[in-house]
Amino acid sequence: MDKNRGDILIIHGPNLNLLGKREPHIYGSLTLVEINERLINHARRLKLELDIMQTNHEGVIIDAIQQAESQFACIIINAGAFTHYSLAIRDALAAVSIPAIEVHLSNIHKRDEFRHKSVIAPVVAGQICGFGADSYILALDAAARLVRQKEQA
Amino acid sequence: MDKNRGDILIIHGPNLNLLGKREPHIYGSLTLVEINERLINHARRLKLELDIMQTNHEGVIIDAIQQAESQFACIIINAGAFTHYSLAIRDALAAVSIPAIEVHLSNIHKRDEFRHKSVIAPVVAGQICGFGADSYILALDAAARLVRQKEQA
Amino acid sequence: MDKNRGDILIIHGPNLNLLGKREPHIYGSLTLVEINERLINHARRLKLELDIMQTNHEGVIIDAIQQAESQFACIIINAGAFTHYSLAIRDALAAVSIPAIEVHLSNIHKRDEFRHKSVIAPVVAGQICGFGADSYILALDAAARLVRQKEQA
Amino acid sequence: MDKNRGDILIIHGPNLNLLGKREPHIYGSLTLVEINERLINHARRLKLELDIMQTNHEGVIIDAIQQAESQFACIIINAGAFTHYSLAIRDALAAVSIPAIEVHLSNIHKRDEFRHKSVIAPVVAGQICGFGADSYILALDAAARLVRQKEQA
Amino acid sequence: MDKNRGDILIIHGPNLNLLGKREPHIYGSLTLVEINERLINHARRLKLELDIMQTNHEGVIIDAIQQAESQFACIIINAGAFTHYSLAIRDALAAVSIPAIEVHLSNIHKRDEFRHKSVIAPVVAGQICGFGADSYILALDAAARLVRQKEQA
Amino acid sequence: MDKNRGDILIIHGPNLNLLGKREPHIYGSLTLVEINERLINHARRLKLELDIMQTNHEGVIIDAIQQAESQFACIIINAGAFTHYSLAIRDALAAVSIPAIEVHLSNIHKRDEFRHKSVIAPVVAGQICGFGADSYILALDAAARLVRQKEQA
Amino acid sequence: MDKNRGDILIIHGPNLNLLGKREPHIYGSLTLVEINERLINHARRLKLELDIMQTNHEGVIIDAIQQAESQFACIIINAGAFTHYSLAIRDALAAVSIPAIEVHLSNIHKRDEFRHKSVIAPVVAGQICGFGADSYILALDAAARLVRQKEQA
Amino acid sequence: MDKNRGDILIIHGPNLNLLGKREPHIYGSLTLVEINERLINHARRLKLELDIMQTNHEGVIIDAIQQAESQFACIIINAGAFTHYSLAIRDALAAVSIPAIEVHLSNIHKRDEFRHKSVIAPVVAGQICGFGADSYILALDAAARLVRQKEQA
Amino acid sequence: MDKNRGDILIIHGPNLNLLGKREPHIYGSLTLVEINERLINHARRLKLELDIMQTNHEGVIIDAIQQAESQFACIIINAGAFTHYSLAIRDALAAVSIPAIEVHLSNIHKRDEFRHKSVIAPVVAGQICGFGADSYILALDAAARLVRQKEQA
Amino acid sequence: MDKNRGDILIIHGPNLNLLGKREPHIYGSLTLVEINERLINHARRLKLELDIMQTNHEGVIIDAIQQAESQFACIIINAGAFTHYSLAIRDALAAVSIPAIEVHLSNIHKRDEFRHKSVIAPVVAGQICGFGADSYILALDAAARLVRQKEQA
Amino acid sequence: MDKNRGDILIIHGPNLNLLGKREPHIYGSLTLVEINERLINHARRLKLELDIMQTNHEGVIIDAIQQAESQFACIIINAGAFTHYSLAIRDALAAVSIPAIEVHLSNIHKRDEFRHKSVIAPVVAGQICGFGADSYILALDAAARLVRQKEQA
Amino acid sequence: MDKNRGDILIIHGPNLNLLGKREPHIYGSLTLVEINERLINHARRLKLELDIMQTNHEGVIIDAIQQAESQFACIIINAGAFTHYSLAIRDALAAVSIPAIEVHLSNIHKRDEFRHKSVIAPVVAGQICGFGADSYILALDAAARLVRQKEQA
Repeated sequence: MDKNRGDILIIHGPNLNLLGKREPHIYGSLTLVEINERLINHARRLKLELDIMQTNHEGVIIDAIQQAESQFACIIINAGAFTHYSLAIRDALAAVSIPAIEVHLSNIHKRDEFRHKSVIAPVVAGQICGFGADSYILALDAAARLVRQKEQA
Repeated sequence: MDKNRGDILIIHGPNLNLLGKREPHIYGSLTLVEINERLINHARRLKLELDIMQTNHEGVIIDAIQQAESQFACIIINAGAFTHYSLAIRDALAAVSIPAIEVHLSNIHKRDEFRHKSVIAPVVAGQICGFGADSYILALDAAARLVRQKEQA
Repeated sequence: MDKNRGDILIIHGPNLNLLGKREPHIYGSLTLVEINERLINHARRLKLELDIMQTNHEGVIIDAIQQAESQFACIIINAGAFTHYSLAIRDALAAVSIPAIEVHLSNIHKRDEFRHKSVIAPVVAGQICGFGADSYILALDAAARLVRQKEQA
Repeated sequence: MDKNRGDILIIHGPNLNLLGKREPHIYGSLTLVEINERLINHARRLKLELDIMQTNHEGVIIDAIQQAESQFACIIINAGAFTHYSLAIRDALAAVSIPAIEVHLSNIHKRDEFRHKSVIAPVVAGQICGFGADSYILALDAAARLVRQKEQA
Repeated sequence: MDKNRGDILIIHGPNLNLLGKREPHIYGSLTLVEINERLINHARRLKLELDIMQTNHEGVIIDAIQQAESQFACIIINAGAFTHYSLAIRDALAAVSIPAIEVHLSNIHKRDEFRHKSVIAPVVAGQICGFGADSYILALDAAARLVRQKEQA
Repeated sequence: MDKNRGDILIIHGPNLNLLGKREPHIYGSLTLVEINERLINHARRLKLELDIMQTNHEGVIIDAIQQAESQFACIIINAGAFTHYSLAIRDALAAVSIPAIEVHLSNIHKRDEFRHKSVIAPVVAGQICGFGADSYILALDAAARLVRQKEQA
Repeated sequence: MDKNRGDILIIHGPNLNLLGKREPHIYGSLTLVEINERLINHARRLKLELDIMQTNHEGVIIDAIQQAESQFACIIINAGAFTHYSLAIRDALAAVSIPAIEVHLSNIHKRDEFRHKSVIAPVVAGQICGFGADSYILALDAAARLVRQKEQA
Repeated sequence: MDKNRGDILIIHGPNLNLLGKREPHIYGSLTLVEINERLINHARRLKLELDIMQTNHEGVIIDAIQQAESQFACIIINAGAFTHYSLAIRDALAAVSIPAIEVHLSNIHKRDEFRHKSVIAPVVAGQICGFGADSYILALDAAARLVRQKEQA
Repeated sequence: MDKNRGDILIIHGPNLNLLGKREPHIYGSLTLVEINERLINHARRLKLELDIMQTNHEGVIIDAIQQAESQFACIIINAGAFTHYSLAIRDALAAVSIPAIEVHLSNIHKRDEFRHKSVIAPVVAGQICGFGADSYILALDAAARLVRQKEQA
Repeated sequence: MDKNRGDILIIHGPNLNLLGKREPHIYGSLTLVEINERLINHARRLKLELDIMQTNHEGVIIDAIQQAESQFACIIINAGAFTHYSLAIRDALAAVSIPAIEVHLSNIHKRDEFRHKSVIAPVVAGQICGFGADSYILALDAAARLVRQKEQA
Repeated sequence: MDKNRGDILIIHGPNLNLLGKREPHIYGSLTLVEINERLINHARRLKLELDIMQTNHEGVIIDAIQQAESQFACIIINAGAFTHYSLAIRDALAAVSIPAIEVHLSNIHKRDEFRHKSVIAPVVAGQICGFGADSYILALDAAARLVRQKEQA
Repeated sequence: MDKNRGDILIIHGPNLNLLGKREPHIYGSLTLVEINERLINHARRLKLELDIMQTNHEGVIIDAIQQAESQFACIIINAGAFTHYSLAIRDALAAVSIPAIEVHLSNIHKRDEFRHKSVIAPVVAGQICGFGADSYILALDAAARLVRQKEQA
């Protein structure tokens, strides 16, 4: 794939493939497939190309972030539980020159103590949480703005 | 004013009236007046009415939150430094039945240790930070979605 | 008002004006007006005059405590969420020579971790919590005893 | 003894038998016998029967709490130093279906750091401290109200 | 009683005599008598003799552990709330040469913070928790294996 | 493989393939092959089918837990060092509807401070540790009971 | 009032209006009026104009700091108990371009643990404490030096 | 027994009856009987009468301390593991007017972290640890000096 | 490959493949390829064979450490961000009988707080950090010495 | 030297002899010699005699404080890094009957966490920090006031 | 001086030369000279030779401990405030093969929090505190016993 | 001595003069004299001049570091126990413009908790520990590289 500075990489981390059946009172009843469809539709309206991946492997996420630098203008990442301890993902995000946006379906501050702290938060552009699947939609909007700002700068 | 379930109250907390000249490398160079204009324009497109206030007084914020219940469908709040210690504002937000959205211009997780912890985060619907003035725009979008969901429920 | 060493000042702190509708499973279904009526009736039986105030403003509470010294024999205070961080209210209570009694409707030790610690407890005569509106009634009884002891001393 | 749902069990914990001579600047100069007399007189006025015990043995307190369930309507307990570490007394209080009221002669928040924390507070109905022997009198009043509320419910 | 190296001492600590009525959503609805019957039946199948005791007194548990050394091959102990602070029971278990197995009905790691830490865990052979009354059955199986290993060694 | 609600998945985490030569005073001298043979024999007696896997990769464990839901009635997991920090494995275990049992060969509470805390403990049915290879045998028994209870419910 | 870059604003925070009668063994027996007289006399000798205010309201202090920027060359502030928790006052001091000097009558390091930490100290030019009313006099001298240095720079 | 102000009460706390067989590399190989013989001989030389007791029950120790006040001139106490958590024993020692001396056979600072802290140390006259059975002999010497000083005062 | 007890395995952990472009003010401007060339040249002078790998996958590192035991005499590892939380890598290093040397390009003690703690440090032979690419050269020297010592022992 | 109750001892602690070249952005560009000249000139105006010393040895500072008691009316001390851990200097300052004033060139609250805490602050009369060399000048003024107050008392 | 295995070195640490005038309510009114006389007399009775030194310099204490090994049979040390932070003195005591006894005049557990912890306690034979000058006398007795035991072993 | 920018100062801190007899299982059996010989031989091969000193006095180390600036190109320091608390040595190392290398014989991360933290590590160029006497040899190599790099820059 050629580099097209309007492309966005969306990374769904561990256990997000279970969306819809995993604790729906917290994460909502939409499946990951349904969320991805919404994202693709919304991206079309914003005239953005999306690449979407899901994995339960920390190393696969790090590889993807490193390779994203030459192919995408922005990363949207929901690192799942890795959010709270993967300093290696943090380092990968810090090492690449494109911005990342951290997304969570639930309001992580309302939940277990250990979910209040994000080790990747200090190296991303911004964080959106608590709006269910809309968190991703809002992140796409934010990404579009970041990309446009960069193009104008 | 009559109650109109599409209205949004925006509360700017302490020192936000200094925006534009206060540490612009952190908070951006827009003044509060300019941000408010953007918010009003964006709200018009979303067909939402806004009420905007700024104060340096914790008690005034609590009074406003309490009175908002009968007049607004949603609160968007940037509580400034009160974010980190005003349990009284937290209690006010928890006591009213309308949802609130927490907003920060900067990514609070990138700054002083004491700014990482928000005492109001556990009682709001969601939190958006790190996108500069766009944090407010995204919060308006989120509020619109929250209001529409309620109307449909 | 002339100083009458049998008078009691009752201070209701932030958000207590919402009593009755705010989380009734925690705070009970009585409104503040109903609690005040009970207090006035009970005080009449104890032959005590009451002054009752409610405010969401920390500074107003501090002003009231300072002025109470020349007008009241005792202060009964439910400082709401200020209980847990207002060192300025603590200093005001420590600075005046009349005793204060700390009251809470709920048993604060059964609730959020941050509500277990009262920064004003070390400077009051005593603390009563967990009996709903009766916490105030018991505090009035305690105040009556404190006042009588002082008159006899 | 037959069960009479107006009876109150009063438990004085370790070292309270020394009252009157033990650090009177903290605990007052009344002996435990004198306090018990006042309690019996006050109970008579409230038309309540009292059972009063003192022990330095944690196990004896637990046995008494367990047996109280079938014989008393309420427990008033000053657990002395056990207040701060006896999780076994806490479990006993949590296990029985009758309410308990925690009492302290002194204001425990004015004293050593380790006395600020009560491990039984989260499982009692309410807590009264700092009024000397009057703490018990107020607890009796509170117990009378709790018992009456239950009878009416 | 003569020493018979197949005998097991089962110690039920404080408040376990209340099983069945104490918070059944946590501890199950079986009474201690019913659990003991199951244990005796299961022991019969394993050809083990049991001695079962329950007490709310820490000192009685220590005495029993010390005397067990000459009479039993293994101790199964559910120390109840003592689990979390009785260093004296810990020392007794460490001082005797027969192994002990720690048992809990509930999963202590799912409950209050203070129940996560067991001060006796470092001196027992193993710990089993979270299977309700079956925790004891599993412990009997484990004890049988420990005893047999020793006999073969 | 068809779904057969009597099947158990056993997951051995990182470094457990070294059993027998890795610190035998802590982990015993049995190799993983020998432990697995015992497990298969014991399962045969319990009329349970087993699937056994070992991996040093966190992501492989998460994948396996997710896929287990449709194929197994219960998971037995010794997550090795992942026990102490893999919130992603915790989330996987919490997300699937079949119960899991946590197993450790050694008594983790007797070892390094950092091994006392299990981040997966709050989401499993129960935990068994300290019985060497027998910990697994006991876990199989526990699993058999869990499965039977579900079939009867 | 016109801006005169030699003017100093002195802010006395909560409870300082009680000076002279509040715990004179800690704060000395001078009243605030007497201290202000001394300050005015000393300022006259230094050829500085003073503006002096006292308030118990956090918001009033923040408003004053913000407005001081265009009217004063330096702020001298004794924030009383706000010193230890008002991050909003800290932000106000950090936001204005004129320097501030932190003053305390007592040596705060000799007193309660919670008074050792000043949240405003990291944003002021310097701190002077422990010299009673002379702390203010020394702060005036320091302010005079700061102002002169700026005029020469 | 009549009060004789030269008498000393020696309290051996939990598990000390096991001395000689309990971890002899820590506690030495002398039995408690042998230590007591040495103490009686040494006391005879010092012309002091001794009363010696051992118990595993915290309540029995508290009772003994309380009764000691009228019968003994000094208490020597090795509270065993109670040293580290029995605030009730601490309160008993603080409540009686005769001095106490804290003794440990082993150097508690060389052992487990939880044995470094003594909750009774702040209320005793002095502490002696690390000299095996000689710790008691030295405590007797210290007691003799304390008693003589009091007689001379 | 046959076992040759002079061989060294060098493991470069996550994100080290980005060397040269990732924050060069911290990590230097050499690429990983250039560092590896230097290592190979230096090893040739020391008459050592090297095997070099880089991976972003924790599990791959654990597999490699386990397999190294039979093929290499020593491991040199720069675990990148895994250094600070991968207890599984720690266990792998502790489980194999060959020594390991921990290397960091930067002085980790000068950087973020969370980089000060290495969870693998307690199980390696030694640690070298802060000399840029020379850290690896020094580690090769140290490895040569370790290998020679073993051959002579 | 005869005792002259107007004399002041100034102690410069470790590394202060490097002033002027050591991190001038923090400590300013004045050398210690230049600061001392200013101090001598200012003291002359205040009619005070000065003795000035600099040392990198903790023991030399303690000796000097002890001997100062008979020769000086006041000590001004900048203990450098000893400020944060030398309890022995603290004890020396507490042991002598003349007052001491703590001085720092920089605002220690703006710097490394470990520099926020002064172990000597609780035993000095007052503390002045953040005004560069002027911190010393202000301390001389404060010392002059302390000496005069004592002479008048 | 020739080595005579009955000799004792007594080290008085910082500020102990001020004994008698330094806070006599804590340390007693005896001077160091008077204490030394008592020690010499008591040593004569025990047939022990003493060497006594006092210094405020940590390095001098370390030198003395190192040289003591060849000349003395035992060290008695009151390290003053060094007790709480001098890890270098701790290492010196651990490095020499002769035993040391730690002594304090006051009961350090009754005083400031920072005095509760002794960093040298884990490397001495035993600790004696709280008996004023008698602490030293008891330490001499303990030293005599240690020396005799060694001679007999 | 004239300044020769190839010279290295080696500082051995407290108790290192005891090497060879002090806990040889930790520090090895080489004496300091033997280590120094090795260093001198190795330096000769590197064509470096060495200056070597050992002292137990913190102040002497600070003096030496300060004077080293004009005479040496690099400092190699094993600060012994000072490593863990001497902020004054840290400040000295930070103040001089020549680089320092921190050395430890043992792997400090494998030992007592308090030895894990080095307060000087944040201000040195790099740290080498755990290779016994070879730690110094490797440090010399590192110093040679640092010096050469500077000469070429």
